[in-house]
Amino acid sequence: MPFQSLADIRTLLTRLPAPDAKAIAAAEARNGQLTKPPGALGRLETVAIWLAGWQGTEKPRADRPQIAIFAGNHGVTAKGVSAFPAEVTVQMVANFAHGGAAINQLARAFGAKLDVHSLDLDRPTADFTEGPAMTEAEVVAAMRTGYEAVDPSADLFVAGEMGIGNTTAAAAIATALYGGFGWAGRGTGVDDAGLRRKEAAVAAGVERHQALLSDPLEVLRCLGGREIAAMAGAILGARMARVPVILDGFIACSAAAVLEQTAPGALDHCVAGHQSAEGAHARLLEKLGKEPLLALDLRLGEGSGAALAIGVVQGAVACHSGMATFAEAGVAAG
Amino acid sequence: MPFQSLADIRTLLTRLPAPDAKAIAAAEARNGQLTKPPGALGRLETVAIWLAGWQGTEKPRADRPQIAIFAGNHGVTAKGVSAFPAEVTVQMVANFAHGGAAINQLARAFGAKLDVHSLDLDRPTADFTEGPAMTEAEVVAAMRTGYEAVDPSADLFVAGEMGIGNTTAAAAIATALYGGFGWAGRGTGVDDAGLRRKEAAVAAGVERHQALLSDPLEVLRCLGGREIAAMAGAILGARMARVPVILDGFIACSAAAVLEQTAPGALDHCVAGHQSAEGAHARLLEKLGKEPLLALDLRLGEGSGAALAIGVVQGAVACHSGMATFAEAGVAAG
Repeated sequence: MPFQSLADIRTLLTRLPAPDAKAIAAAEARNGQLTKPPGALGRLETVAIWLAGWQGTEKPRADRPQIAIFAGNHGVTAKGVSAFPAEVTVQMVANFAHGGAAINQLARAFGAKLDVHSLDLDRPTADFTEGPAMTEAEVVAAMRTGYEAVDPSADLFVAGEMGIGNTTAAAAIATALYGGFGWAGRGTGVDDAGLRRKEAAVAAGVERHQALLSDPLEVLRCLGGREIAAMAGAILGARMARVPVILDGFIACSAAAVLEQTAPGALDHCVAGHQSAEGAHARLLEKLGKEPLLALDLRLGEGSGAALAIGVVQGAVACHSGMATFAEAGVAAG
Repeated sequence: MPFQSLADIRTLLTRLPAPDAKAIAAAEARNGQLTKPPGALGRLETVAIWLAGWQGTEKPRADRPQIAIFAGNHGVTAKGVSAFPAEVTVQMVANFAHGGAAINQLARAFGAKLDVHSLDLDRPTADFTEGPAMTEAEVVAAMRTGYEAVDPSADLFVAGEMGIGNTTAAAAIATALYGGFGWAGRGTGVDDAGLRRKEAAVAAGVERHQALLSDPLEVLRCLGGREIAAMAGAILGARMARVPVILDGFIACSAAAVLEQTAPGALDHCVAGHQSAEGAHARLLEKLGKEPLLALDLRLGEGSGAALAIGVVQGAVACHSGMATFAEAGVAAG
């Protein structure tokens, strides 16, 4: 068992593996010899070299991507924070199982393995405006589900989520971690009154748990949800297995932010897949120091934006690992 | 033979087919019933509906993409406008043939057919600072090569290019079509002195041919190159066959701009694949009214940015054509 308490997780976060410096140097050298002007493939070059470091090889791959979706239910939905009823979480999990959701199509399009983990959907987290969302045992169990969901043989990992009400939880986490206002947004499409209810719930939750919120893992426990905790656990699990991660949208990034605030550098194995249309996502990416690969106004969750970015990473890898060098091709190097 | 003169091409440009309005309506209706909040897939939704219109079907596809690369040589390279010698054009064509270039890897990654057309590489266009780059017969022949290169059974088309010196030709075209300064950029990586030589060549070319430049097709003839003319012909050919096009970078867009300036709306079947790092590309996309799908600092040409965007379009199509509706999945529609 990788950890049994938040204290164990704190310890784990002090022992994170680094990328392979030799592989990075070899990939950089290779990149300089490929038949193109220096830098002409832009971010595809930096992505390929980053991937090389985490995969520990000069020629990285991206033909075994894994997408894991985590689903959870939220007590705070009682406060009228979502445009959809809480039953939709379990209905969408059934849709994932039958292959009908957006993420199923994207997984197929980019050759990714897709796993779905339902986390006690019949037992929503507590309404965080009234008490901590989870006990320590609950948050640790959820993080372990995520941690153990990572296939160490995957060459790329995406954590996605489904959970009616979870943009409210993510906004509360961001507010607690970074302060300020305006972290709540429209989510799946809540109206003005709903948005005001979200803002009120976030403010109430942060105020109620204020005494504990200097610890990011307590932020996750008090304000998060099981699927958010599972994503944090999965991102940590991927790091321990040196599997590079593509971060999805606002909710996935709120989970990631908990790790980064606990141990700066904890997201070095992560690239931002996209910038979503959820208002505060751009701001959250800035806090994480991550530049998104895509910005196509998606705001679906399910890991969909990150899944779409798998295609970009596959393009980067194809060029880096497949192109001829100037010497091989007999092309003048300029 | 589709056309024999620039006059024939002008006539063709008055007879462009429109998208299928019924297919657009059907695709919009379908999009509204898919298991996601309205608009949550952002630009993937508009891309899928746009594709539906041109393919004439409620459920578009993107599994038969075609990439055609056109290569040409430029007399203006005598003015020292490129960081690479002109011989690199033919060397890179050999690299395409052997599968070693970036575009070969991207074509394979996204399942695209790749064709390479060399246009009289041993006979560069005339130096446009000293005379028209091409005769009418030459520009028409090059456009015809492009026009006939389009496979009407393709479900997506990308025109790419290779031609040392062609960012100078493209900058001259943009200057002639839109006026102003600053259309010349670093291309493959020219130094400050080289950039000044480019700017001088562009200014000299535009001044020399000023009397003819109110006609966009004359702009193409006097300042363009064979591969640029071929791309214009290919984009026109795709329109006549109702094959949707992903536009590549600055040079491809300069070719497209000739069509749009001749017949506004001529690029309605085109989406901008990416915004390149070539300085003036963003400005050219604005002139064309096109929002890029990607902006990853590529500046390679070869159709590489557009090829990468095939992945995004495939993701859009996968979602639109593969997802379950609320009714099929038994999900509450919010």
